[in-house]
Amino acid sequence: MTQQLHLLTVATADLDAVRRLYSDALGWEPHTDVPGEIVFYQVAPGLLLGFFDGEKFDRDTGQAHGGVSGVTLAHNVASREDVAPLVAVMVSGGAVVVKPPRESEFGGIFHALVRDPNGVLWEIAHNPTWSIEPDGAVHL
Amino acid sequence: MTQQLHLLTVATADLDAVRRLYSDALGWEPHTDVPGEIVFYQVAPGLLLGFFDGEKFDRDTGQAHGGVSGVTLAHNVASREDVAPLVAVMVSGGAVVVKPPRESEFGGIFHALVRDPNGVLWEIAHNPTWSIEPDGAVHL
Repeated sequence: MTQQLHLLTVATADLDAVRRLYSDALGWEPHTDVPGEIVFYQVAPGLLLGFFDGEKFDRDTGQAHGGVSGVTLAHNVASREDVAPLVAVMVSGGAVVVKPPRESEFGGIFHALVRDPNGVLWEIAHNPTWSIEPDGAVHL
Repeated sequence: MTQQLHLLTVATADLDAVRRLYSDALGWEPHTDVPGEIVFYQVAPGLLLGFFDGEKFDRDTGQAHGGVSGVTLAHNVASREDVAPLVAVMVSGGAVVVKPPRESEFGGIFHALVRDPNGVLWEIAHNPTWSIEPDGAVHL
C-alpha cells in the first residue's frame, strides 16, 4: 500500500450548505458536483475531499453514522494575522466558531476552531515550525 | 484560503494499535511519533494524517468526541485483484472487515470496507475511471 490517501468522504446532511461554505464563501473550485449525491473538492495532489449525502453514505457503509465525530481537518495559514479573517469568511459561509483565535495548548501554534454545517471541525492555524518542501514533503 | 488540507487528525484510543496497523502491517513510515500523544504519517504532498490520543484530542477541541464517525478514508489500488490482498494485510494488522470485496453500489467501483482499531473506516477500491496526472490533478 503506497502511503497515499486518495479520498476523504464526509457524510453530509445538506449539500447546498456545503456549496455555500466551500464554493461561495471560500471560493473553492468543485472538482465534481453530482446534485443530490456528492460534491468533490481537490484538497491536495492526488486527494479529493467528498461531501456525500448522508443517507447514501449510510447505505454505502452499511451503518448509520450519527454525525461527524472524532476527526478534525486543518488548514495552515502564513501568519497569526491570517487566522481571524479566514475564520470570519467561514462564518459568513455558515460555519460556527467553536474556539476563537488563540494560542494552542500544544506546540506554539496560534489557531481557531470552527464547525462547518455538517459538523466537520476545521482548525485554522498558524504553525511557525511547519513548512512544505517543493516536492510536497512536510516539515514540522 | 488555498484549497489545501494540511492535516487530518483522528482521535485515537490506542496509539500502539495505530503503529501495529500502519507502521508494522502496512509498512508506512511515520513522519513523527510522539509517544503518548500523536503519530503522524504523510499521506499526500503537503498533508499529514495524525492519530492523536483521544483524551488530548478532546481537550484540544473542548468536547468529548464519542468515537470516529461520519467519515471514510479511501485508498485506490491499480486492479480489482489488488483489493483482497490489501484487506488481508490490514486485517493482519488489527483491522476488521466491514464489507468484503465486491462491486460498489456506486459507479463501477470494486471495493472493500475495513475498520481500523480506532474506528476509522477505510475503503480499499479499484476505480477504473480514476487517475492522477503528473501534477497531482485527479481525474474521475
